[in-house]
Amino acid sequence: MRENSVGIVSPRSEHFDEPLNFACGQSLSTYELIFETYGELNATASNAILICHALSGHHHAAGYHREEDRKPGWWDACIGPGKPIDTQRFFVVSLNNLGGCHGSTGPTSENPQTGETFGPDFPQPQVDDWVDAQARLADRLGIDCWAAVVGGSLGGMQAMAWSLRYPDRLRHCIVIAAATKLSAQNIAFNEIARRAIMSDPGFAEGYYLREGTQPTQGLALARMVGHITYLSDDAMASRFGRELQPGDAGAEAQEFQIESYLRYQGQQFSSAFDANSYVLMTRALDQFDLTAPYEGDAVAAFTQASCNFLVLSFSTDWRFSPARSREIVDALLAAERPVSYAEIEADEGHDAFLLPIPRYLAVLDAYLKRVQG
Amino acid sequence: MRENSVGIVSPRSEHFDEPLNFACGQSLSTYELIFETYGELNATASNAILICHALSGHHHAAGYHREEDRKPGWWDACIGPGKPIDTQRFFVVSLNNLGGCHGSTGPTSENPQTGETFGPDFPQPQVDDWVDAQARLADRLGIDCWAAVVGGSLGGMQAMAWSLRYPDRLRHCIVIAAATKLSAQNIAFNEIARRAIMSDPGFAEGYYLREGTQPTQGLALARMVGHITYLSDDAMASRFGRELQPGDAGAEAQEFQIESYLRYQGQQFSSAFDANSYVLMTRALDQFDLTAPYEGDAVAAFTQASCNFLVLSFSTDWRFSPARSREIVDALLAAERPVSYAEIEADEGHDAFLLPIPRYLAVLDAYLKRVQG
Repeated sequence: MRENSVGIVSPRSEHFDEPLNFACGQSLSTYELIFETYGELNATASNAILICHALSGHHHAAGYHREEDRKPGWWDACIGPGKPIDTQRFFVVSLNNLGGCHGSTGPTSENPQTGETFGPDFPQPQVDDWVDAQARLADRLGIDCWAAVVGGSLGGMQAMAWSLRYPDRLRHCIVIAAATKLSAQNIAFNEIARRAIMSDPGFAEGYYLREGTQPTQGLALARMVGHITYLSDDAMASRFGRELQPGDAGAEAQEFQIESYLRYQGQQFSSAFDANSYVLMTRALDQFDLTAPYEGDAVAAFTQASCNFLVLSFSTDWRFSPARSREIVDALLAAERPVSYAEIEADEGHDAFLLPIPRYLAVLDAYLKRVQG
Repeated sequence: MRENSVGIVSPRSEHFDEPLNFACGQSLSTYELIFETYGELNATASNAILICHALSGHHHAAGYHREEDRKPGWWDACIGPGKPIDTQRFFVVSLNNLGGCHGSTGPTSENPQTGETFGPDFPQPQVDDWVDAQARLADRLGIDCWAAVVGGSLGGMQAMAWSLRYPDRLRHCIVIAAATKLSAQNIAFNEIARRAIMSDPGFAEGYYLREGTQPTQGLALARMVGHITYLSDDAMASRFGRELQPGDAGAEAQEFQIESYLRYQGQQFSSAFDANSYVLMTRALDQFDLTAPYEGDAVAAFTQASCNFLVLSFSTDWRFSPARSREIVDALLAAERPVSYAEIEADEGHDAFLLPIPRYLAVLDAYLKRVQG
C-alpha cells in the first residue's frame, strides 16, 4: 500500500427528496450527492472536516479507487494519515457539487420533469446553493457542526460562504488562494472559456448529448485558457521556457513545448468533463460576491461569522493574488474575527494550492493540530 | 481641421520585383508594400523615421483617410505637427508588413504561381524578413539611414532587429514595451489564439476564401484572448469592475460589462482582420529571438549595434513587463551601447504604448528633440 495514503476508497451517494431552491429562482425537486469520506466520525460527531472543491474538482480528493490507479485523488498531498488533514484524527467529507459531472446531479443527469437529460436547462447554481446542499449532506451524516470547512480557489469561496450562511455549523474556516469576488480580469478569462465552448458547433446550444455531438475543441480551448491562469509566468518559464518540441518537422511547423503541453491538457480535459458543467461552474465563480448582501462591505459581511479563520495565499498566484487574500484578512481583522494568515513562497502560481509545498503543508498542519477533533 | 494632426493622408504602394527570400526558406518573387508618409523628406534624406507596427497594426498610423473618419491612425497620439514624432521636423514612414491584410502582399493576395489567393500557403515571415522588406522600401525612398526606427511591442522587436541587421542604417532605435523574445506564457496565449482560429470549422484549414466560409467566431475569440493581455488587471477593474450590463434580461442571463465589451471587440476585429494573417503574425512573434544567433547572449547580440537606444516600458504591462525592458537595457549597458530608459507609470497595461500618457509623450518628445533631423 502507498505510504500515508487513505488507501482504496469508494464513493457513496445520497438521494435527497426535499426540493432545493436555488438562488436563481429555479429548484431541484430531487437530487443525488456523490461523496467520499476518509477516517472515522467520532461519537460526538465533532471531528468532521468538509472539503469543498474548485472549478473542475470533484469528490475524489484522496486515496485510490483501484489498486492499479496511478494517480490518487486531487488533494492527496494534504489528506491522509499523518498529513495536515489527518485522517487518524478527522472524519473528512468530500463531495461533488450540484451541477458537476462526476456523479452528483448535474447537466448530464435526467430531468425528472421531462425524462431527458438536463443539458443547458440545469438550474444555474450559486456558491450559496452548493453550501445549502452541503448542509443537507451534513444533516444526513449526523454532523451538526464541522470542525473545519476547507477549500481552495472556488472551494475557498464555499468555505467563506459557510461562515456567513451557517455561522454555528463550523468552528474553523480555511480559505486558500481565494477572493471575496472575482476581478474583471478573472471574469474575462472565464467569458473566453465559455465563448470557446458555446461557439463550438458541437455545443448545439447545450443539447450536444441529445444531438449526438460534443464541443470537444471548445472545451479543450476553455481548459487551455484556464490552465495558463493557474500557472505562473515563472513556472511556465522554468518548465517549458522556449524549448521546441522534439520532432522531425521542418522549422516552420516545429512548435514550442508549451503549445503541445497545453493542447494535450486541453484534449485530456475535454474527454473527461461536461461542457455544460464547465459553463455553470464558471458562471457560479463569476457571480459569487460574498459582500453583495452587505452593499459591498466585506467587514459587515464577516461580522456575521463566528468561527476561526486561516487564510493562505501563494506568492506567484496571479489568478487570486496574495493581495486578494489580504483583503479577506483585513476585513476579518476589522470585523474582529480571529484570523491567521500566511503567504507561501511558491513558484507554481494558483496551482500551488494542490501541490505538496513544504511550508504550505507545515502551516496547514500546525493550524489543524490546534483544531480539536 | 483637427489640431496637431497630419490631416488627410493617402496610402501609397510600391511594387517590388526582386525576389525576397524568407528565413523559413520560401520566397516571394514579387510583392507590394503599402505605406503612408507624413512630413517632408529633407534634401539629405537624413530626417526619416520608420514606424514599425505591432501584431494587428498597419500602415495607417496618423491622420485621417477621409474628412468623415472619426478615428485617426493608430499612433496619432505620437505622430503629427508638434507631437513627439514631429512631422514638422521628420519625414515619417509607416508601412504594412508582408503577411498583413491591409494592402501589402499577404495571405489574401494572389499567389502568382497558382493564380489563387495564398491563404495558408503564404510563407511564414520572421521579424528579420520584415526588416529586409523595410530596408528595400528605404532604398526605394532614397533613405540610406533612418534618423530613427521606432516601434512598440512586436514593432519594438523590428526596431531592435534593425539595429543588428543593418547597424549602419539607423542612428536611433526606440524600443517600446518589447522584449528580446517571448516568454512561455506569451507563447501560450498566442497558441490559444491560433487554436481558436484553427478549430473554427469556418477556417477550412486556412482555405476559407476559396471555400466561401469565415472563421469569424475563432478570430473573435483570438482577439478576446489578446485583448485581456493588453489591459492590466487594474485597468479592467476601473473601467468595468463587476458592473452588470444594463438590460431587461433576468438575473441568470445578465452579464458583466467586461463580457459584452470583449465580445464586441472580438466581433469588430473578426470582420476587419484576416485569420491567416493573425496566425502568421503571432507565429512571427513567438519565433522572434534576438539572441538566437548569439547562443542566447543578448550582450553579444547588441555588440553588433552602433546606434543610440531609447527603451520604454509601462508599470502595469504584464504582457511585456518592465522587467523584460530592463533585460534589454542591461544587455545594452553591458555591450557599452548608449541607452536611455524610462519606466512610465500607467494603469493601462500593454495598451499604454498607444495612449497619450503625458509622461510617455514627454520622454519621447525630449529624446526626439535631441535627434538631429
